[in-house]
Amino acid sequence: MKIAVLASGRGSNFQAIVDNIKSGYLSRVEVAAFVTDKPGCPASEIARAHDIPVLDVDPSRSSSRRVFDAVLVSRLRDYPVDYVVLAGYMRILSYVFLKHYPQRVINIHPSLLPAFPGLNAQKKAVEAGVKISGCTVHVVDEEVDRGPIIMQKAVPVFADDDEQTLSRRILVQEHLLYSRVLKNLSEKEMQISGRTVSFS
Amino acid sequence: MKIAVLASGRGSNFQAIVDNIKSGYLSRVEVAAFVTDKPGCPASEIARAHDIPVLDVDPSRSSSRRVFDAVLVSRLRDYPVDYVVLAGYMRILSYVFLKHYPQRVINIHPSLLPAFPGLNAQKKAVEAGVKISGCTVHVVDEEVDRGPIIMQKAVPVFADDDEQTLSRRILVQEHLLYSRVLKNLSEKEMQISGRTVSFS
Repeated sequence: MKIAVLASGRGSNFQAIVDNIKSGYLSRVEVAAFVTDKPGCPASEIARAHDIPVLDVDPSRSSSRRVFDAVLVSRLRDYPVDYVVLAGYMRILSYVFLKHYPQRVINIHPSLLPAFPGLNAQKKAVEAGVKISGCTVHVVDEEVDRGPIIMQKAVPVFADDDEQTLSRRILVQEHLLYSRVLKNLSEKEMQISGRTVSFS
Repeated sequence: MKIAVLASGRGSNFQAIVDNIKSGYLSRVEVAAFVTDKPGCPASEIARAHDIPVLDVDPSRSSSRRVFDAVLVSRLRDYPVDYVVLAGYMRILSYVFLKHYPQRVINIHPSLLPAFPGLNAQKKAVEAGVKISGCTVHVVDEEVDRGPIIMQKAVPVFADDDEQTLSRRILVQEHLLYSRVLKNLSEKEMQISGRTVSFS
């Protein structure tokens, strides 16, 4: 199973995926390309360190999100992939991109969706006083953080948590969960029926 | 610790509390009164079977929610309690009631709040395709299912679940969670700071 990874930041989820490929846990997964809208971001260094082709796409050269997404699609055309994996990619993907990878773009979000969609999910969870939060891997559609849910992992929230301590606890589980999903995708068939996702 | 239990239906959470008192798990808890807005409901039979005073309050005899709540308050005046425990009580409590028990009315809800507030939480969870739901015990304030969260328990949701199978799985955990909260309330001090609840 070939994947493209899209990231904008430090790429810790990308690093975890690369580590799990190297260890053999994701023996059927190959990162065919790394794409970033932030040329020079730490995540792109991870790609270079593992000889993964890096596609830098500078959004300041595109006049709109759709134009930018069309550039992404054309750059990715040289790297056929089964799934597009968002790992801290900080731009919203438009239909221009998504139609090329129907139900094959996945994202990870640091909450138990539908709770706390959007930015600063961990901060929102702390402020809401929840006792359980977590992370969610979902199929990406045009609504932000609303696509069908593939897997979730619950994480406890303690009364003395702040955004940082909760973020760290969730991140540990993100690294495990994303690779569990990729392992499933590489070994089984994913079915999406309405909003319900299953593997067979 | 004396509690009043309010219920409108079969009272399975009430039964679990009574069982945990009898077993000694809730050795410091006593149900001082049972209140229902549905005279003759199965929950009231549980109360009678355990010699717990039953206060039947018929809402058709009150002209408004506030009047009804004032009747509840006056009926409960004979039974001083530390906490009011909602166990499937199907009416919204107004400020008229809540001001008499500030931060001492608690409720259980069959989802991980803030996800799926209101009626049919389990059905909404199945329809949303979440992989984790659960139950929440929270302090009751005037906004439905929005008060500070005391404890939560996560429950897995499977791809072949329907409302009934998920409800049953969550209910098992409700019975455990509610008594865990009551045990904490009877042995420790609850602090509420903003929306964050802790015990010391």
